Amino acid sequence: MTLGHLDIIERASRLYDEVYVAVFVNSSKKGLFSHGERLEMLREVTEHLSNVRIDSFKGLVVDYCKANEIPVVVKGIRAASDFDYELQMAQMNHGLADVETLFMPTNRLYSFLSSSLVKDVAKWGGDVSAHVPQTVARRLVARLREQ
Amino acid sequence: MTLGHLDIIERASRLYDEVYVAVFVNSSKKGLFSHGERLEMLREVTEHLSNVRIDSFKGLVVDYCKANEIPVVVKGIRAASDFDYELQMAQMNHGLADVETLFMPTNRLYSFLSSSLVKDVAKWGGDVSAHVPQTVARRLVARLREQ
Amino acid sequence: MTLGHLDIIERASRLYDEVYVAVFVNSSKKGLFSHGERLEMLREVTEHLSNVRIDSFKGLVVDYCKANEIPVVVKGIRAASDFDYELQMAQMNHGLADVETLFMPTNRLYSFLSSSLVKDVAKWGGDVSAHVPQTVARRLVARLREQ
Amino acid sequence: MTLGHLDIIERASRLYDEVYVAVFVNSSKKGLFSHGERLEMLREVTEHLSNVRIDSFKGLVVDYCKANEIPVVVKGIRAASDFDYELQMAQMNHGLADVETLFMPTNRLYSFLSSSLVKDVAKWGGDVSAHVPQTVARRLVARLREQ
Amino acid sequence: MTLGHLDIIERASRLYDEVYVAVFVNSSKKGLFSHGERLEMLREVTEHLSNVRIDSFKGLVVDYCKANEIPVVVKGIRAASDFDYELQMAQMNHGLADVETLFMPTNRLYSFLSSSLVKDVAKWGGDVSAHVPQTVARRLVARLREQ
Amino acid sequence: MTLGHLDIIERASRLYDEVYVAVFVNSSKKGLFSHGERLEMLREVTEHLSNVRIDSFKGLVVDYCKANEIPVVVKGIRAASDFDYELQMAQMNHGLADVETLFMPTNRLYSFLSSSLVKDVAKWGGDVSAHVPQTVARRLVARLREQ
Repeated sequence: MTLGHLDIIERASRLYDEVYVAVFVNSSKKGLFSHGERLEMLREVTEHLSNVRIDSFKGLVVDYCKANEIPVVVKGIRAASDFDYELQMAQMNHGLADVETLFMPTNRLYSFLSSSLVKDVAKWGGDVSAHVPQTVARRLVARLREQ
Repeated sequence: MTLGHLDIIERASRLYDEVYVAVFVNSSKKGLFSHGERLEMLREVTEHLSNVRIDSFKGLVVDYCKANEIPVVVKGIRAASDFDYELQMAQMNHGLADVETLFMPTNRLYSFLSSSLVKDVAKWGGDVSAHVPQTVARRLVARLREQ
Repeated sequence: MTLGHLDIIERASRLYDEVYVAVFVNSSKKGLFSHGERLEMLREVTEHLSNVRIDSFKGLVVDYCKANEIPVVVKGIRAASDFDYELQMAQMNHGLADVETLFMPTNRLYSFLSSSLVKDVAKWGGDVSAHVPQTVARRLVARLREQ
Repeated sequence: MTLGHLDIIERASRLYDEVYVAVFVNSSKKGLFSHGERLEMLREVTEHLSNVRIDSFKGLVVDYCKANEIPVVVKGIRAASDFDYELQMAQMNHGLADVETLFMPTNRLYSFLSSSLVKDVAKWGGDVSAHVPQTVARRLVARLREQ
Repeated sequence: MTLGHLDIIERASRLYDEVYVAVFVNSSKKGLFSHGERLEMLREVTEHLSNVRIDSFKGLVVDYCKANEIPVVVKGIRAASDFDYELQMAQMNHGLADVETLFMPTNRLYSFLSSSLVKDVAKWGGDVSAHVPQTVARRLVARLREQ
Repeated sequence: MTLGHLDIIERASRLYDEVYVAVFVNSSKKGLFSHGERLEMLREVTEHLSNVRIDSFKGLVVDYCKANEIPVVVKGIRAASDFDYELQMAQMNHGLADVETLFMPTNRLYSFLSSSLVKDVAKWGGDVSAHVPQTVARRLVARLREQ
């Protein structure tokens, strides 16, 4: 969860009446934070956005969309190199369930951010406060200190 | 005006209450069709879409958007190579007037279409009926015969 | 094995007298299907192509080509993002053994298919019958049910 | 006509029984060399390749292919940035007439050559003998001196 | 001349003892500003950089470098799409005269700027003060008003 | 360690008074060679370059640079596809510590080399002497034979 992600959520929340931020439940992948912690952080950093709803899902994005009557998926896109993979998923989802995908270009301030790079910098004591929300930075430092 | 453009317009018309298709008035560039003819063709091929409005404008896209209270520009995007240039314009427009740009991936059937390629094929007598709407194909052939 | 792969094999079989489809034997990587099952599926979906021969190999592609007097490798290529990696392999193979590589553009219908995406969709019960041959779809669903 | 083009022709001539090198007749574009001179240069640099035929054509590539019963077009490709445009043309030609296009990667020695760059270098007296065949270099220098 | 260009010049001036900013004299291309005006603007915006020298040249970059004993060319690079063309020139120059080219990534604030886009915005009365130095903005507006 | 890496080191050593080649100490990743062996090989292949210093580091590149008063990081770059990732790191490092990154284009002879491809070829008995320094080739073959 970087400031780039937050920027996309904020801008999407101004364009649509209701925005779902849905985190995929991946029980096999063990990240730095648990699924519950990730939802908690997302809720904290989006609590000023009244039309944003934090949720989690299992299975296919298109099934989640159909179940919640969501007609369009908004994806942040940073650079041309993100594009081909995102296009594959967009075309697949369109074929499966007529769910549209729209790409929102990342704010130029965050065009070169990646979560893994941020985690790496934090791991070695680098300052990531310009790249992630304050609460995430604090948790990240605390968690890495535990390890 | 290819079937790729029409596909973008049709899909956008299902996602938004009102869609403006605005043609830039370029008096210095002399195309195969006049500005009036282009508007006419656009009206013909979109007449089944009641919430689509064909219009023309001079000046900056963002000024047109502000004048018409349009919050978002939807651009079709075919491939990664389209992306960098579109991103430049999107970032510029966002800076000028807080107008958002969303990219809609082209239908895979039309991912490899380009207007100039279609014109070239038509010029040499090739069949373009799979690439442009019928009325455009007819006008294109007629116009090229005149030349 | 997607319809994209099959399309490349079919088109190659029309351009060349004899086509080898050679599956690399990778004992360390444990996929959804065994090596034998993969060969079986390939044979099933290509049985209408009399000049296509399904085979398997260990070692370098160029050694396989030399052993079988194959002068050219045909690779399907979907998008610009596939290109740089494929070029590395093509240049390496050309340097090692004067084996040429030719890239055949994927049919636009399958430009956005990837095996891993298809597997993911099938895993969650999505319909993949538009993306893989019928026999593969059936086996995929059966195998995923077992797990 | 650079050494990169010649390399593609030479390698294609080893892969196919007969290779047509067909120059498009473009009466509106006035290049440094006339159409006749370009054919002459091509003949000179390929005279050691007995199965290569230099020809010229007007109209669509696919019509030329059909008239000469050519089943496949081989195009040299240097880098990922060439790819999207070439793909557009390949898809269009496949749709028009079932003519296949295969991409042959440029020799790494010539991956970064472009005709316009070579012309530019020659114009200012730079040495282009490492980039174009000898006869082309000689003619290029002579022609530029005339201007 | 955008703030992106100025940023590259400023950062290069901190890395090297002496920096030449050399403008190519192109008598055939008629821009908005004359060659003299462009040099004047460059001098104005770089007058705080004591080791930067504004100059102009005709001919090949490598000849200019050799004449001035410049061992390395620093080019700003914005995005992957700039890269292939720049690589062609870098490889050509390295072959011609052992002049090295180093690419300096554009500041993320200016990654999406292009001179032609800025000119376009200014032409229609858009505010470009966030994209070009103040003196350039003033001259641009004045010149466009004259036309 | 390929001939592509060595070429970058050699060219950098001609452009700068002092060049540090610093290998990241990664205790979790188990490569074919130990950290000590990698340093040894680097020292062997660069012993003719008196201003090149082989070193190792833990932590962030920018911290290493600050500790050693290194103002600029030179990275080899092969193709456009390398670019976006490298740009992310360059922007991150610039933000963290005002360390500049300059990209040096790989020699065209080595543009298509990758360490993993070389290792793969060597593993199957292919000749890699055109791709890595002699001492590396010898050690690679010896090590792979042991396994």
